[in-house]
Amino acid sequence: MHFSPLIEELIQALRCQPGVGPKSAQRIALHLLERNRQGGQRLATTLAQAMEQVGHCSSCRTLTEEPICPVCSSSKRNPKVLCIVETPADLLALEQSGIYDGLYFVLLGHLSPIAGIGPEELGLNELLNKLENQPVEEVILATNPTLEGETTALYLAELLAPLQIKITHLAQGIPLGGELEYLDGGTLSRAFAGRQDVK
Amino acid sequence: MHFSPLIEELIQALRCQPGVGPKSAQRIALHLLERNRQGGQRLATTLAQAMEQVGHCSSCRTLTEEPICPVCSSSKRNPKVLCIVETPADLLALEQSGIYDGLYFVLLGHLSPIAGIGPEELGLNELLNKLENQPVEEVILATNPTLEGETTALYLAELLAPLQIKITHLAQGIPLGGELEYLDGGTLSRAFAGRQDVK
Repeated sequence: MHFSPLIEELIQALRCQPGVGPKSAQRIALHLLERNRQGGQRLATTLAQAMEQVGHCSSCRTLTEEPICPVCSSSKRNPKVLCIVETPADLLALEQSGIYDGLYFVLLGHLSPIAGIGPEELGLNELLNKLENQPVEEVILATNPTLEGETTALYLAELLAPLQIKITHLAQGIPLGGELEYLDGGTLSRAFAGRQDVK
Repeated sequence: MHFSPLIEELIQALRCQPGVGPKSAQRIALHLLERNRQGGQRLATTLAQAMEQVGHCSSCRTLTEEPICPVCSSSKRNPKVLCIVETPADLLALEQSGIYDGLYFVLLGHLSPIAGIGPEELGLNELLNKLENQPVEEVILATNPTLEGETTALYLAELLAPLQIKITHLAQGIPLGGELEYLDGGTLSRAFAGRQDVK
């Protein structure tokens, strides 16, 4: 033990943050204690508040401290399109791109029998309910192009098939700025399979 | 605004930590909210406690929540040697090396007229008091080998000269594992000037 107990405890507690190892934690603790008590105090208050108050949007399941998130409660969004994503961070990435004006549904994960995550955990009953009661005309599957994400998309496609709604998924292919030379075979084969007419 | 206000506020508050930019802050916030509320809650509590309770050791000025720090209150330390360092992190680096068993005095900075840090702010009155009342036989100047650190060491050497105590400073030269080829001229010239007889 090199510091007094409370400082050691603080260094330990800081490590709950992803990307913060023992050295960074120590640096952060000393920085806050020596130079920014006010910032530390503010972080403590906000963190306590957020951990307690932030829940999930009752409509799309994204993280929010309000009953309905800003996207779902906005009158400017197109209620006829529903985009299904895995996490709130995915939702954010789409929002930041500014290319989508429909609504979302956040699975908060992907199917993973090993981790005990099934249709129930992903809120698929709520999703079916939503699709029955709302005028959705197109569902966009935007899960990640990983094994788990694609399995989840496949499962969703089958689940939603009886509803007679248009189901699409995001195009897979060469990312902007990508160089053929450095792309993996999987991406290339998707790009070939999905090739389109030059207009 | 892409998240609800409280989450945005949390992301902003997390940025008081050195090394945490906007992307990391967002990642940390979502991770804590989605997967580790308990860790976040614990961090909030510990942080609030530390920011409020941690002060300075009344003997050596290092950071501690107790009146006297573990090093100063230990009976195993040699009270005849006093090592002067700039920051609690410097003290820690020396402690972790395990090569020193004397006591410390932490300046909490270095002389910097521009930043308004003078002898008063570095606690030099307390240092003189300490040296008068305690049986210190050697003072080791371990400020950083930077312009400010060396200026501070020089000032201290002059200040303590009248006390007739042995004053030393850490050896400067080639670091272990360093390669001559890549060392700067300043380090090399110190290494030359400080060369020693081969025993």
